[in-house]
Amino acid sequence: MLIECIPNVSEGRRPEIVEAMAAAIRAVPGVRLLDHSSDPSHNRSVFTLAGDAGAVEQAVMALFERAVADIDLRRHSGEHPRLGAVDVVPFVPIEGATMADCVALAKKVGAEVAERFQIPVYLYEEASTIPTRKNLEDIRRGEFEGLAAKMATAGWTPDFGAAAPHPSAGATVIGARMPLIAYNINLATDRLDVAKKIAAGIRHSSGGYRFVKAMGIKLESRGIVQVSMNLTNFEKTPIFRVFETVKREADRYGVAILESEFVGLVPSAALMAAAEFYLQIDGFKADQVLENKLRS
Amino acid sequence: MLIECIPNVSEGRRPEIVEAMAAAIRAVPGVRLLDHSSDPSHNRSVFTLAGDAGAVEQAVMALFERAVADIDLRRHSGEHPRLGAVDVVPFVPIEGATMADCVALAKKVGAEVAERFQIPVYLYEEASTIPTRKNLEDIRRGEFEGLAAKMATAGWTPDFGAAAPHPSAGATVIGARMPLIAYNINLATDRLDVAKKIAAGIRHSSGGYRFVKAMGIKLESRGIVQVSMNLTNFEKTPIFRVFETVKREADRYGVAILESEFVGLVPSAALMAAAEFYLQIDGFKADQVLENKLRS
Repeated sequence: MLIECIPNVSEGRRPEIVEAMAAAIRAVPGVRLLDHSSDPSHNRSVFTLAGDAGAVEQAVMALFERAVADIDLRRHSGEHPRLGAVDVVPFVPIEGATMADCVALAKKVGAEVAERFQIPVYLYEEASTIPTRKNLEDIRRGEFEGLAAKMATAGWTPDFGAAAPHPSAGATVIGARMPLIAYNINLATDRLDVAKKIAAGIRHSSGGYRFVKAMGIKLESRGIVQVSMNLTNFEKTPIFRVFETVKREADRYGVAILESEFVGLVPSAALMAAAEFYLQIDGFKADQVLENKLRS
Repeated sequence: MLIECIPNVSEGRRPEIVEAMAAAIRAVPGVRLLDHSSDPSHNRSVFTLAGDAGAVEQAVMALFERAVADIDLRRHSGEHPRLGAVDVVPFVPIEGATMADCVALAKKVGAEVAERFQIPVYLYEEASTIPTRKNLEDIRRGEFEGLAAKMATAGWTPDFGAAAPHPSAGATVIGARMPLIAYNINLATDRLDVAKKIAAGIRHSSGGYRFVKAMGIKLESRGIVQVSMNLTNFEKTPIFRVFETVKREADRYGVAILESEFVGLVPSAALMAAAEFYLQIDGFKADQVLENKLRS
């Protein structure tokens, strides 16, 4: 059973601190640190790790231990909104793991973090227990600086721990979600209005697909524009449907698709679904894939 | 390193004999028997197994031992052409294995089979040492019944063993090839002439794609026709190109594609290539796939 975890930490400028956190994760037996990257302007780092539930839990605890020791939110600034030293901890089901496994793990880790580090924890997304506390943006609104006041407000008692921020480490948002796919489509035009109109048409917030976040941006150096997306549930809103919609809408402006790209990792099942759609494969089953069969 | 092996055996009517061969393969440590199926009218069975080179070699030897004991070609009849008790043994590179590994294994196993069972062996496809002995059909022409005469002809001395058939087990063709994908496209029509014309257009033998074998057949029970194909090198002649060509040619007759299907297993890379093509993914790398990254 494999669970992926993508903790976001409020430190992106001191490489030695980030490296110490990476080393703490790598030291846990049964855990693979797949990737980590830091953004100095965000002053934030993202780790991607995977393992079974027990190993991932241990790695998250090891990361908290280092982060609490090395990060002080009272002296932190950066462009990205944040609530805590370890800001967000999503658990994602991969092979053989279900969403229920990830929700259970989020709650277990949440209780443990509150108990061991005196850091209050909010549960989010699939692990959320309150409908108004499902979205990360809503929980994070007001940031670390507004946290003490927010916690005293009705409806904002944390899921675990006291209703007061940890002095230096703030609070942490822990939850379970589907894999997030960062997917961009480049258009053969420099017309930013076209990219923006297409993005508005496909994103959930303005009436589009339920699991799409999108914006239109300019790629200055190439003289083209891009529809930049996060696909938050590739099973319910598949890549091919989004691609075909963007293609059709671009066509309405006489614009062609130049190419698309994934930023970071993409689950194999998301690509298989595209092959199945375009090749019109009848009754396709995952165990027809040689590699899946070999591992079953 | 994983190598797949798909031995074809001249017995498809006595389930107890086939099951004894399957058991002999399964008993080899490190080998997975992924599939086996028998065709009584062909009087032939196909096994699909995988493992590292050493384990696969052992499993093939174990299969020969049973086949030589239980099959007598002098009393064998069936619709499918055949030369030997173990008729064909292809080795196919999967994960971490190269074609060169499979060619080396084919030669090692060929020498061993000739030595241990006194069965002459022809090498074919990528393992072939003579240009006129690359195609299985050419080697098998004349079948078991014509084998003694053929072996005495110039150019048909076997690669290993004496130039005389084994009395009951004939000869065996051993080699290395790319994974073969059995792929069918169903057309929304009952016009067999359309399926036949499309098949003729795409297959290598009549001027089509180099690594496509194809025929048009009728699916009586459904009242539709099918372009039934073997794709013998999905890297050089990819599925999406074949699919798009069939679609375009069918369109010329006003016929739509109903669906496509794989018979048996398909390598993940063949489906990934389709996703990459249709989604126009720029600079796609296999290690962007989460599952590949986890296993690297």
